[in-house]
Amino acid sequence: MNTFQEQLEQYADVALQKGINIQEGQGVIINAPIEASDFVHILTAKAYGRGAKDVYVQWGDNVLTYMKMKNASEEVISNFPRWRAQGLEEMAKDGYSVVNVYGPDPDLLKDIDSERVAKANKASAEALTTYRDYIMEDKITWTIVAFPHPDWAKKLFPNDPVPLAQDKLWEQIFHITRIDRKDPLKAWDEHNEQLRQARERLNKKQFKKLHYKAPGTDLTIELVNDHVWAGGAAESTDGVTFNPNMPTEEVFTMPHKYGVNGTVRSTMPLNYDGNLIEDFSLTFEDGKVVDYQAESGEESLKYLLETDEGAKRLGEVALVPVESPISQSGHVFYNTLFDENASCHIALGKAYPTNVKDGTSMSEEQRDEHGVNDSLVHEDFMIGSAELDIDGEHEDGTYEPVFRNGTWAGDFKK
Amino acid sequence: MNTFQEQLEQYADVALQKGINIQEGQGVIINAPIEASDFVHILTAKAYGRGAKDVYVQWGDNVLTYMKMKNASEEVISNFPRWRAQGLEEMAKDGYSVVNVYGPDPDLLKDIDSERVAKANKASAEALTTYRDYIMEDKITWTIVAFPHPDWAKKLFPNDPVPLAQDKLWEQIFHITRIDRKDPLKAWDEHNEQLRQARERLNKKQFKKLHYKAPGTDLTIELVNDHVWAGGAAESTDGVTFNPNMPTEEVFTMPHKYGVNGTVRSTMPLNYDGNLIEDFSLTFEDGKVVDYQAESGEESLKYLLETDEGAKRLGEVALVPVESPISQSGHVFYNTLFDENASCHIALGKAYPTNVKDGTSMSEEQRDEHGVNDSLVHEDFMIGSAELDIDGEHEDGTYEPVFRNGTWAGDFKK
Ligand SMILES: [Zn+2]
Ligand SMILES: [Zn+2]
Ligand SMILES: [Zn+2]
Ligand SMILES: [Zn+2]
Repeated sequence: MNTFQEQLEQYADVALQKGINIQEGQGVIINAPIEASDFVHILTAKAYGRGAKDVYVQWGDNVLTYMKMKNASEEVISNFPRWRAQGLEEMAKDGYSVVNVYGPDPDLLKDIDSERVAKANKASAEALTTYRDYIMEDKITWTIVAFPHPDWAKKLFPNDPVPLAQDKLWEQIFHITRIDRKDPLKAWDEHNEQLRQARERLNKKQFKKLHYKAPGTDLTIELVNDHVWAGGAAESTDGVTFNPNMPTEEVFTMPHKYGVNGTVRSTMPLNYDGNLIEDFSLTFEDGKVVDYQAESGEESLKYLLETDEGAKRLGEVALVPVESPISQSGHVFYNTLFDENASCHIALGKAYPTNVKDGTSMSEEQRDEHGVNDSLVHEDFMIGSAELDIDGEHEDGTYEPVFRNGTWAGDFKK
Repeated sequence: MNTFQEQLEQYADVALQKGINIQEGQGVIINAPIEASDFVHILTAKAYGRGAKDVYVQWGDNVLTYMKMKNASEEVISNFPRWRAQGLEEMAKDGYSVVNVYGPDPDLLKDIDSERVAKANKASAEALTTYRDYIMEDKITWTIVAFPHPDWAKKLFPNDPVPLAQDKLWEQIFHITRIDRKDPLKAWDEHNEQLRQARERLNKKQFKKLHYKAPGTDLTIELVNDHVWAGGAAESTDGVTFNPNMPTEEVFTMPHKYGVNGTVRSTMPLNYDGNLIEDFSLTFEDGKVVDYQAESGEESLKYLLETDEGAKRLGEVALVPVESPISQSGHVFYNTLFDENASCHIALGKAYPTNVKDGTSMSEEQRDEHGVNDSLVHEDFMIGSAELDIDGEHEDGTYEPVFRNGTWAGDFKK
């Protein structure tokens, strides 16, 4: 058993070597809350140790974010400064990798007027369009790693004092990201290999459609022609293998933006930028959400869907069996990075162009024709459970089981 | 006696109301180390409480600065990104005030190659030229307030554990900035009035030259025609009264860039961007440093003087009597904000255009002709002591005492 400090160092190693797969002479952007400074210092020291030419840290602070959303003028919150976007674009263009140290407070903005939050989200999403393309098209390597921010830890372990809650959450994070294995780097290689096999099995099938059945869910998702299932390690434009999410348990591909029909019910709360949307369902016609309801956070859901045309359509369909270690932990993490890897999910908004053959080189028009969705947002929400069945429909109209009772079935069983 | 929390709140009040004199509807930039987050949160809450439209916090981190200076590529450290300067310029143009929460580690960069430090300093100084003009010409209101950063506190109280060292330094800061008075805001008004009287007495004299005599010092400083003594509260272009430094005990004016002759010896260490320069002396001819030596940090002094032409000439001459509460504390603070207000000092580099009549509207050529120095740097260093005598020379060649034994003499006694 390694000490906490040793585990933290290994976590940084995994983030840098398997996450962004840092190369000598490149730059690194780290986005992190100020509370994560100890971990950020370790990441930074190790990044320079591996020959990084620069480490640029963009600190976040929940208190400042909250106070700004509460008090700043309408004009300020609805304008994301161009120079900030420019800085990120320049660094991305220069090949900087991005490490997001992620542990948001799920309730941060719950007493803020949803319209203000929506305005701020839209402004930053619009300003960051070019930067986001670097990420979503894997033009640079990037990764999201979890950090037990006190506000998040407190949400999960409300009865514990903060330091204890953080310790408990670190333990979960280290377990789920394989840091408690004997050789975490090797464990990631093995895990990536398993995910590669799962996506290859699916890629060979080239299903026309997926049919979802579960309590409250009866949904058909058409997949785009020449769709590509991805999962585990990805490859950047420059040919560097990297892991965008740590943890990652999903294989995912591209739904057709005009080919989704039926109703789907969420199975976990969605933490949408500081607001929880719970027990919600969406009804689709020809790819578009035509009806929705939520037990709580309906206002946030409304603003999410109204961001733009693409926010009402799907950009991702992802499969995660209930045997996922995160699912097995029995926790709801109120954190998409974790919850999406505990459960089958779909995402409203922008599709990853890498989920279709030649997707990154298509024109905007070609993308639309092909069914590739575009939007300022990309929001995963969870629809998996032990009661979910999924069938794959072939080109010729025949069906075969993909999931039964929340896990791989038929040809897809390991 | 107020609690620590109450004093911290009063300190924030003084910084916002007397420091930048915050006005409703304006923005605020706060530069602060991440360790100061509690104080920054108080400042931010109070700024919004007084109607700020935005508070933008630019976090600093000694560890990251150190690692970058140690490891980043030559190209990275000698390029200050344009977009960062642009952001500051845009906010300054929009009337944002600046609060610098200041508590640098005097030894931060002592094992870093001086040439690298000089390159980084020059790059940032060049990039920030336009932004610096907003500050040095009082086009916006700005203030520097001290914060007992652990690294600074440890330098002052090396035998105490960090939290105790910080407590002791807070106590000093609160005393020196009048936060321990019954009504700190009123105490600042009274103090500003005293400094106003001191500068008025000097403005009436319009000395041609000042003659300095002390052990190791025999220096003549010509003052520019129509020089203006400033000190205490200043007034921004928009007519807002503000206090650029907290504490402030000095009255200061403009030396003639071509009119300084003789030798001057420093009486306190100079903390120049993470390096201490100690026991140094400079010899001037016609305004320019022609010889220098330092017991330690001579390499840093060399790079400082070689920044540009103006770095070898003076931009400020300031008078502080030995009765100053900071001087009385008996501490060397290794922090220019404090040490310059304990001691008569002069500054290498750029002059404040506000220290001469119509200075802010002069062309570059007019400034040079008038003797107004320009440079990328402005570095105060301390030359005061209880052994310092200063005489003022009138236009007609007659002399009168200004300082005797380190304090006001003759007409200048209160
Ligand atoms: Zn996903
Ligand atoms: Zn997703
Ligand atoms: Zn001064
Ligand atoms: Zn100065």
